[in-house]
Amino acid sequence: MSTGHPDTLHTDAHKEGGDPAVCSALSLIAAGALSGFAWLADDAANAPDLTSRMLLSRMAARELAPLDPVQAYQREIGMDEAAVEEQIWSYRALLADLEARTVPRDWWERLISTYIGFGLVLDLQRELVAGMSGRPAAIAQEALADSGLGDFVVERLAPAVAQEQQLAARLALWGRRVVGEGLGMASRLVSEHRELAVLAGIVPEGTEVSAEVLSPTMGRLTSEHARRMGRLGLTA
Amino acid sequence: MSTGHPDTLHTDAHKEGGDPAVCSALSLIAAGALSGFAWLADDAANAPDLTSRMLLSRMAARELAPLDPVQAYQREIGMDEAAVEEQIWSYRALLADLEARTVPRDWWERLISTYIGFGLVLDLQRELVAGMSGRPAAIAQEALADSGLGDFVVERLAPAVAQEQQLAARLALWGRRVVGEGLGMASRLVSEHRELAVLAGIVPEGTEVSAEVLSPTMGRLTSEHARRMGRLGLTA
Repeated sequence: MSTGHPDTLHTDAHKEGGDPAVCSALSLIAAGALSGFAWLADDAANAPDLTSRMLLSRMAARELAPLDPVQAYQREIGMDEAAVEEQIWSYRALLADLEARTVPRDWWERLISTYIGFGLVLDLQRELVAGMSGRPAAIAQEALADSGLGDFVVERLAPAVAQEQQLAARLALWGRRVVGEGLGMASRLVSEHRELAVLAGIVPEGTEVSAEVLSPTMGRLTSEHARRMGRLGLTA
Repeated sequence: MSTGHPDTLHTDAHKEGGDPAVCSALSLIAAGALSGFAWLADDAANAPDLTSRMLLSRMAARELAPLDPVQAYQREIGMDEAAVEEQIWSYRALLADLEARTVPRDWWERLISTYIGFGLVLDLQRELVAGMSGRPAAIAQEALADSGLGDFVVERLAPAVAQEQQLAARLALWGRRVVGEGLGMASRLVSEHRELAVLAGIVPEGTEVSAEVLSPTMGRLTSEHARRMGRLGLTA
């Protein structure tokens, strides 16, 4: 783990994990893991067939994988546990809010909510951890790797969308609603956690978080969204 | 895995897994895993603090562990996949019904529902797989081992119950409601799956499932319930 000399560990910690922005980013990863677990577990509970239920349950369980390395790292660098807890809890609330604002009316809408909404949550995290290096960066990268969820959704949704024009129209509308709520959440999260935006290089140090400053990030999130809708044969 | 000779595997399968009752029992274990996952994930989503949420999320994820060995075994003995799927799905519905009938009004009632209701679901499974031997028995035993959930609930509930007489009275009443629904579910499940009751030696071959025949089993489930309530300082 450490290179042996206690001072080395201390210096590392001071350089990387001791940085409150890095710690905040890792708390976001932990919150993302908990939210992802809850989101996919809820989908699993509503799955109409056993195969989907098993797949989604297992995907949900795998979402928890980052918790151990994040907690181990935060403990190692001696982060204040109560502060970390509060941070994770507040990120979790921000992310859960998106799920609460986009309650699906059926299985198809649920798949869209997850593909588009949860997909955006992951993209947002990818944007915000981009400025990290070393072990925290590796932990984040591992946590945000593609889980195959997109392929799962596209496999199920695309054929249904291709066959039913009315369903396609309804889901295109729903996708726009979900991404709208998602971008709103993203902008709230960045505004409330300026340290992450600075760490990620989204906001230059000393600059206010504004719609203009966030515009390139929001643009990237929107493009990813359009790419996803495209895979379903839907217009973004 | 097998002892080498293909006939041996086939004989084993015929003796153990080929037995429809053993297959049914393993489907119950798989359904129990899915239900346990959903149950604890729902508890995690409603946990009032981060420590409980993390603990319950992780416990939920661990509930899925039996799925792989059960599915591997059922595939190995060449069980009809569609039949297994239908079996697991129908068991799942029976188990989920208990959760639906005991919707808690707050965190304390939720802890009781899980401790008492989910505890009874596990006890019922233990009763029903008792007649198995060999690998199916080992899979079931592993699946139904103590996960530490009871200790988690007692640690949280017992002090609150000891301090507030009104809460204790309310939760004692709620515990009775939950166990009543649980015993009802147990009796429905056994009546609908006579093969399990015969396998477990609860019902002698050729005998109808009746309240009288089930009475020793229900008695054991009730004793376990009383023991759990006792750990909380509540009267069953």
